[in-house]
This record gives sequence, structure tokens and C-alpha cells, in this order.
Amino acid sequence: MTNEAKNFYDAIVIGGGPAGVSAAVYIASRGYRPIILEKNEIGGTIGKVSSVTHYLSVDSCETGESFKQKLENQLKVYNIEVLKEEVTEIDTENLLKKVSTKSGNEYFGKTIVLANGTSPRKLGILGESELTGKGVCSNPWKEGKDYAGKDIFVVGGADGAIKEAIYLAQFAKELSIIHFEDALGTIAEFKNRLEKLDNVKLYLHSRLTKINGESKIESVEITDEKTKEVKEIRCEGAGVFVYAGSIPNTKKYSKIELENGFIKVNPQMKTNIEGVFAAGDICCKDIRQVATAVSDGTIAGINAASYLKLI
Amino acid sequence: MTNEAKNFYDAIVIGGGPAGVSAAVYIASRGYRPIILEKNEIGGTIGKVSSVTHYLSVDSCETGESFKQKLENQLKVYNIEVLKEEVTEIDTENLLKKVSTKSGNEYFGKTIVLANGTSPRKLGILGESELTGKGVCSNPWKEGKDYAGKDIFVVGGADGAIKEAIYLAQFAKELSIIHFEDALGTIAEFKNRLEKLDNVKLYLHSRLTKINGESKIESVEITDEKTKEVKEIRCEGAGVFVYAGSIPNTKKYSKIELENGFIKVNPQMKTNIEGVFAAGDICCKDIRQVATAVSDGTIAGINAASYLKLI
Repeated sequence: MTNEAKNFYDAIVIGGGPAGVSAAVYIASRGYRPIILEKNEIGGTIGKVSSVTHYLSVDSCETGESFKQKLENQLKVYNIEVLKEEVTEIDTENLLKKVSTKSGNEYFGKTIVLANGTSPRKLGILGESELTGKGVCSNPWKEGKDYAGKDIFVVGGADGAIKEAIYLAQFAKELSIIHFEDALGTIAEFKNRLEKLDNVKLYLHSRLTKINGESKIESVEITDEKTKEVKEIRCEGAGVFVYAGSIPNTKKYSKIELENGFIKVNPQMKTNIEGVFAAGDICCKDIRQVATAVSDGTIAGINAASYLKLI
Repeated sequence: MTNEAKNFYDAIVIGGGPAGVSAAVYIASRGYRPIILEKNEIGGTIGKVSSVTHYLSVDSCETGESFKQKLENQLKVYNIEVLKEEVTEIDTENLLKKVSTKSGNEYFGKTIVLANGTSPRKLGILGESELTGKGVCSNPWKEGKDYAGKDIFVVGGADGAIKEAIYLAQFAKELSIIHFEDALGTIAEFKNRLEKLDNVKLYLHSRLTKINGESKIESVEITDEKTKEVKEIRCEGAGVFVYAGSIPNTKKYSKIELENGFIKVNPQMKTNIEGVFAAGDICCKDIRQVATAVSDGTIAGINAASYLKLI
């Protein structure tokens, strides 16, 4: 906000998920000084999951929380500064780029890596916002056990939703999966594990259309897409976990070239603006896995360091 | 070799490094049955390094050996079979592809993932082959301590060489780095760590040109590229570790399209032959890191599973 608040870095990495942390580690290993600006916590989306699966070298009991801890340790090894800041604007007109945050601070960097991923899509139904934190949840690992002995509803049928449904079933009286398609769209591994559970109910070709309650959830409404039948289910104190896709966090990047809202990058993870790189789920890509985000971050970090060497 | 020996799998993954293991894990998670054929050990090149650095989530004390153990654990979780087999030929003419091995076995798979990386380039100098295992080494983690109190020579100036030189310096009476260029080509992190060591000697614009000895190394010859001076150094019982680049293991793949010896792949990690994917260091790519190999394997595995679903 004022000149006194100016902060100078070699590289500003926006977002502290797997892509951002990887980029920062590579930049630091090349002798440059990066900073990570993260509005929430290190780990990003993956830091909130009940288990991290498939990423090479994870323990069979790896949780989002334990994975996040590993990332934080790695950041410490490289003395990488992380600030809790929500970026509101980037100014890439000059060689020294400026990043402004909600708290009124300004950060200056010679290069920027955009790695602030996606946000969960909201259903936009009655009761969803009103009951957030009072039954409508987003972190199964932390919040799941609060619904022990209660009904739990998981909205979604893709891998992320079903993995969490399997985890949440251990707490739930009954675990209901509500999915708008005719079949779950998940991998065999999760399908097999789901089939072994005896407290799971499937609502296929169905949508969650209303959540009722004030200080807690009292009932939910599920609408069958085929019969148009609306079913109200009494479920006092229930938990609802929504996995209805995600939206790239690119609104604030007005000068960056997008495609369907995601950032267009070349194989070197360069955006359309010189010195601005992007990595992870925020980019246009076919496969969004921790592994691909980490690779993006690695490539972006190495190329950002090469850029720093040249300018 | 005979019909009785036929072995059928959904997917044959050639190579058990990070790329191959990732591909196999993803294929198995999608409900298909992969096998890994590996002529050496799980872990590939990275399984032999003294420390695994930068890959997201590694411990600060991660060794190639501990990383390899993590991969083996992950393979067990998914019940993935690994066979010690050296592949000699692949026959991709039919929908059911055939992989032949040196031991005379034949394996049949609907899809193949080529992930058998690279082999270290040899210097091709006198004494190199003769003294392999008697001073000329390839696994610092396992062999380094055998040269405690002796002279150790590291040939190479890139990241892999310097990382191992730093590790080996703790054992060496004197640690010499022999590099043909005028400066080391390594990252700041390793340069800084190297500078702090007091038993390191640099031979720049120099080459190791001869290794003398019979049951052990007696002396080495180093040639200065500029002055052409040849220096013989007495170093009884020394260790020599060579990092002179690597060669893609693609000779046996006569029908696969290559570029500079590496496999050409599209963004889905498909080769020119339908149903044959490639991943990791064996592919044409700019950046060869564990992270990029893991991402390749992830993408190859997911797309191989999609291919299996379609055929």
C-alpha cells in the first residue's frame, strides 16, 4: 500500500499446494529467493483429503495432513518464506512485477509462478452457504469424526468424492452418496472398497437440492433426475460433503491467456506473459493428479530460475 | 520360449524406476493387472543415489535406498508382480503384444509401457571395464564407505556428479572432481555445499584418461584439455565414480520412433505404436527429474488403463 511496505523477491509463487511448493523448492535450490503467498494453508486441496493415494512414494497411511507436514518440512530445509496472503491483483507490465494482496501489501518479484489451483464448485442450493460449518463441510479428515453416529451425505461420484465417502463411512450411521449420473465415475480400486461397506446408500441420477436447518442440519432434499420425485430425509445433525467439481482461481489474472478458465501454458510452463509461469491444477491439462502438479511445479521452477539467470 | 511358458497380463511395464512403478500403480488402481519386468532392482537410477533431493514430499534424509523401499511398499499395497527379467525384444504386430526376455521367457500383454530409462555412459578408457567392482563404482550409497581414508575420484560436473561428490567427501582422504568444462554445471545448492568441504580438489577442463591397477586401482591419469599435460596420480585402493551422462535403453525397440535415441511421445505418453506407451527418462524431454518421470508414469498408466477399457 505504501512504499515502505514494498517487499522484493526473486520469485513470487502464488499458491502453496504441491505445484507451488515444488516450484519454490527448485527456485531456491538454484540459489534464488522465492516467497510463497498462500491464502489458506500449505498443501492446498490435497492437504485436506483423508488419504493421499497413488503419488509415488506415499505411505499406505498417508493423509492430507501428514503430506502437508512433509511439504512444510521441505520448505524449512530450503528456508522458504510463506506468507498468509490473499492475492487480489498482479501487475506484469514491468520487468519487476507487482503482486497486491487483500491485506493491502505489495510484493515485487522478477518472476511469478501462478500455482493457486482451483476452488470447490458450490451447488448453489438453499441452505448450502447458511449451514457451512454447521453441517456442510469441506475437510473430511478434520470434520468427519464430528458426525460420528449421524448420517453423512457425500455429493459427487468421481474419485475425490468416493475416496472421501469410503473414509467417512467409518463414522456415519448411514453414508449416502448422491450423484447425478447413472453410475459412479470412479476407479476400480475405490469401487471395490466401497462395495465392501455395509452402511452405504447410493442415490444415482439424483441431486441434492436443499439443506434445511439453522444451527445444524435437520433434513435434506434429494431430487431424482428421472422421476423428478423430491424426497425429504430427516437427518438431524447430519454432515454434508460436496464434491461437485472445481473452478480455476484465475479471475484476478486479467492479462493471462485462459482456455475455459484455465491458464494456457507451453511445455516450459510459460504463460503468454514473459517471466510469468503457471503450474498445477490452475493450468489447462488433461490429468489433474498430485504427480502432474508436482511435475508442473518442477518444470516451472527450473525454467523460472533459468529466466532469472538471463535477465 | 514354449507355449507352456506363456504369461498373460493386461499391461507389461518394462522398467521398475519411478516412471514404471507409477504407471503400474495407476494401472492396478483402475482394476487391471500389470507386471513389471526389471533387469536390476526396483528404483532404477534413483535407487542408487546417496540422497533423493527436491522431489516433493521426500524427507531431508531420503536416500535412494529408503526411496526404493517406499516404492516396493507401494507395489505390495497394489499386489503388483515384479520379475527380474531383461527384455530383449518386443513384438507389437498383434493386438496381444509379446515381450521376450534374455532368460527365454515370453510375456503377453494388451498394452506395454516402456519405462526402462537410461544407462550410464562409459568413458571408454583403459582400465574402466577391467577395474569395475575393484575401484570403479556406480553406487555411492553402497560402495562409498569401502573407500574410507582413500582417494576418491568423481568424473562429471553436473548435478548428479556433484551431489555424489559431496556425499563421498565424508569418506575420502581427498575427493577429486574431474570435469571437462571450465566450470561445474551444477545448481547453487550443491555448489554452496561443495565449497564448505575442505578435502575437495577440482580438475577442470580435464578428463580422466586411464585407470591403472589389477586387483585394485594403483593410479589414475588425468589429462588437461587445455595444456594437454598428462598427470599420473598414485592413489592405491582409490574409488572412481563416473557420471559422464547417460544413454537411453532403446536399442531393442526397433519399431518405436526415436529422436536422438529417445522415444518420441505425445502428451498422452503414446508412442507411434497403438497400445504402446513410454514414460520417464527414456522419452524425449527437456527436464529429467524424478518428478517428471513420476508424472509421465502417471499419465501413461491412466491412458494405458483407458486403452484397456476400450479394446
